[in-house]
Amino acid sequence: MQFAIVLYDRFTALDAVGPYETLGRLPDSETVFVAERTGPVRNDNGNLALIADRTLDEVPNPDVLIVPGGPGQTAQMDNKALLDWIRTADGTSAWTTSVCTGSLLLAAAGLLEGRRATSHWLALDELRRLGAEPTGERVVTDGKYVTAAGVSSGIDMGLALLGRISGDVVAQAVQLGIEYDPQPPYDAGSPQKAPADVVGLLRSMSRFILGTEPTT
Amino acid sequence: MQFAIVLYDRFTALDAVGPYETLGRLPDSETVFVAERTGPVRNDNGNLALIADRTLDEVPNPDVLIVPGGPGQTAQMDNKALLDWIRTADGTSAWTTSVCTGSLLLAAAGLLEGRRATSHWLALDELRRLGAEPTGERVVTDGKYVTAAGVSSGIDMGLALLGRISGDVVAQAVQLGIEYDPQPPYDAGSPQKAPADVVGLLRSMSRFILGTEPTT
Repeated sequence: MQFAIVLYDRFTALDAVGPYETLGRLPDSETVFVAERTGPVRNDNGNLALIADRTLDEVPNPDVLIVPGGPGQTAQMDNKALLDWIRTADGTSAWTTSVCTGSLLLAAAGLLEGRRATSHWLALDELRRLGAEPTGERVVTDGKYVTAAGVSSGIDMGLALLGRISGDVVAQAVQLGIEYDPQPPYDAGSPQKAPADVVGLLRSMSRFILGTEPTT
Repeated sequence: MQFAIVLYDRFTALDAVGPYETLGRLPDSETVFVAERTGPVRNDNGNLALIADRTLDEVPNPDVLIVPGGPGQTAQMDNKALLDWIRTADGTSAWTTSVCTGSLLLAAAGLLEGRRATSHWLALDELRRLGAEPTGERVVTDGKYVTAAGVSSGIDMGLALLGRISGDVVAQAVQLGIEYDPQPPYDAGSPQKAPADVVGLLRSMSRFILGTEPTT
């Protein structure tokens, strides 16, 4: 089974690495980081670079397509080469997935029309504008489309999808291997749980977080 | 404030990226990936490479030192250049930290003698042999030394340390920004919680996970 994780300028690193460290640990599978060009791809902060080992053209038919988000997603919304590749890969994929604002790229490629899906909580309105039906869930599965909420949710998505692909024991083994027994020191991981002033602070920064102007 | 994240051959990606996506989002800070040589550093699976932008020598005095783990840690235990750098950096650091088996490198550098610390659950015996006092906690703080358990625990460590450095509001804002509201689909993230057969499976694979023979 081949997993392809798409990279583009100003992606968010954990969006890519969360699914990587879960799905990518499936025995007898291949995971490849792909981008329009091979070589280093810089993230949203500019101080982290992951290597794309293959071009999009070299990986036309992955079994599982993983599209991370990040502020750089905005600039990709009219990138015909990337959107065409997403559509082509989706044509033969077993699963088409995204983390965070990666779902906006799936939607821009026309894949989420009328489908239940999710994204970073600051991007749910935009996801609706693009034709999907946003939900408040952390991981949303609609047919073969699996979308995850913001950034860190890709770990939960990866484990859930691994369970679907390979069964509970493999997924539990990976969870135990990466010792994913989360104990956040705060309970501020969603806008429903975080203090109002923290939510307001994030909303005021949403253009930087999403790479665009606020959507409300 | 400067954060230095150390890379070495066959590190585990999430060990590095968890602290990166939390501590690295502190405003007005600098995060730099360092290694003996600049350029791509391959992870444990070999299909992910992060770029080291600076050599160890170029970053002698980070405020916060972050040492990830991974199977490649074993080969670094007698790497004098790396251990010397860790000791030197620790001489002026405000915080010296590790994720997963990164704590074995801190111990090998002589920094955890008699200190409470933690590591990947499969490596706790080895940590004790190296002079530390392992605990079962996910994040352990002893003075300026902050060690985290396996792989994914670096996210919890990063948020906890961010709270110490910059206060609760900043840490909560980062948690909300990365939407860290974990909802694992299984409750198998620690050997106390996982099914016995899954724990047994991981123990049987420990030489591959740790890059060494089983420690028991």
